[in-house]
Amino acid sequence: MSWLPSLITHTPEEGFDLAIKLSRMAVKKTQPDDDARARMRPDYANNADSLTMASHVVATNFRTVAQANNFWKS
Amino acid sequence: MSWLPSLITHTPEEGFDLAIKLSRMAVKKTQPDDDARARMRPDYANNADSLTMASHVVATNFRTVAQANNFWKS
Amino acid sequence: MSWLPSLITHTPEEGFDLAIKLSRMAVKKTQPDDDARARMRPDYANNADSLTMASHVVATNFRTVAQANNFWKS
Amino acid sequence: MSWLPSLITHTPEEGFDLAIKLSRMAVKKTQPDDDARARMRPDYANNADSLTMASHVVATNFRTVAQANNFWKS
Amino acid sequence: MSWLPSLITHTPEEGFDLAIKLSRMAVKKTQPDDDARARMRPDYANNADSLTMASHVVATNFRTVAQANNFWKS
Amino acid sequence: MSWLPSLITHTPEEGFDLAIKLSRMAVKKTQPDDDARARMRPDYANNADSLTMASHVVATNFRTVAQANNFWKS
Repeated sequence: MSWLPSLITHTPEEGFDLAIKLSRMAVKKTQPDDDARARMRPDYANNADSLTMASHVVATNFRTVAQANNFWKS
Repeated sequence: MSWLPSLITHTPEEGFDLAIKLSRMAVKKTQPDDDARARMRPDYANNADSLTMASHVVATNFRTVAQANNFWKS
Repeated sequence: MSWLPSLITHTPEEGFDLAIKLSRMAVKKTQPDDDARARMRPDYANNADSLTMASHVVATNFRTVAQANNFWKS
Repeated sequence: MSWLPSLITHTPEEGFDLAIKLSRMAVKKTQPDDDARARMRPDYANNADSLTMASHVVATNFRTVAQANNFWKS
Repeated sequence: MSWLPSLITHTPEEGFDLAIKLSRMAVKKTQPDDDARARMRPDYANNADSLTMASHVVATNFRTVAQANNFWKS
Repeated sequence: MSWLPSLITHTPEEGFDLAIKLSRMAVKKTQPDDDARARMRPDYANNADSLTMASHVVATNFRTVAQANNFWKS
């Protein structure tokens, strides 16, 4: 089973969660070591700018997902 | 009730507020601890570059919301 | 009266000014204290990278405004 | 005469120059003091990351201008 | 054989992998020395902000690839 | 002869090269001194974050070029 079978989601909220998943998967593909990623978590989870940067990535991915779903209109 | 039932808003101003909500929700999903986020607030609320970065995220999300609403053109 | 009644402007120049307004409003919504924002002004107004970052936010918002106005074509 | 009468240009190259103008105008609107901007020039003109950031702003504005001109396709 | 014969992929997951490839190829075109790139890997693979920046590039490229594939709808 | 006669290219790979050219040309327009740019090369070519930033600019320009070419869909 693919981790990304489709960009289509039932609701905007599920689409937002998919945008978060896309953002994290790109990190995981660059640093596949789970422990290494876990070690870095305190660094960004407690740094305002790091969180803002992460939010920007989600925003960019959410735009793609939202457009794929025609913005969940009707 | 979903925190994001729809991308449709009545007015551009409500759409802008939704863009801010999207920007903050992505931060909250990464750092769910309310106290931790509150502790960081003085860091970014008093730093010009941090505020500019935050404004950029809002701009990216506003683009998505605006397009979803066909730019609120009657 | 809303601060953002519409994304439609008569001219490209007015659209650019609206993009600047959107960029600043997102900052104001994050840091509503007028004095705090005034104190930060020398920080970014005299720093080249800060100004470039601000210009990037305007560019992102201008894209939204321009598209809303169909690029002011006839 | 407006500094931005239109987003339409005759050629892609003129469109690129307009994207640079938009990028600089946003800086000028934030820091209107010509001398202050001139003092900062050595800071960014000799810093690789500053130049890359500036190029990113131009890229974002060029996207808007290119779309306004339907990518200059006949 | 071109390293980029097409933007069309069979699945969203292959599209995401192509977005990663595009992101890395731009780096390789700027720094063609394989050893130099390998030396830098620990720098960014163990830095949270570097990984977030890399994820942002992937997100931007994924948007292009997703649109090229009409978001893999039907 | 213009350095940018058209955004149309025969192949995606040529389009990617054009995106790189656009990214570099914006730098050159800001810092026209060839020697100054050459001096900075070691700074960014050996810094992971600088290369990621450069890759982001290419991604933004590639999006414009890809759309201009209708994603090279025959």
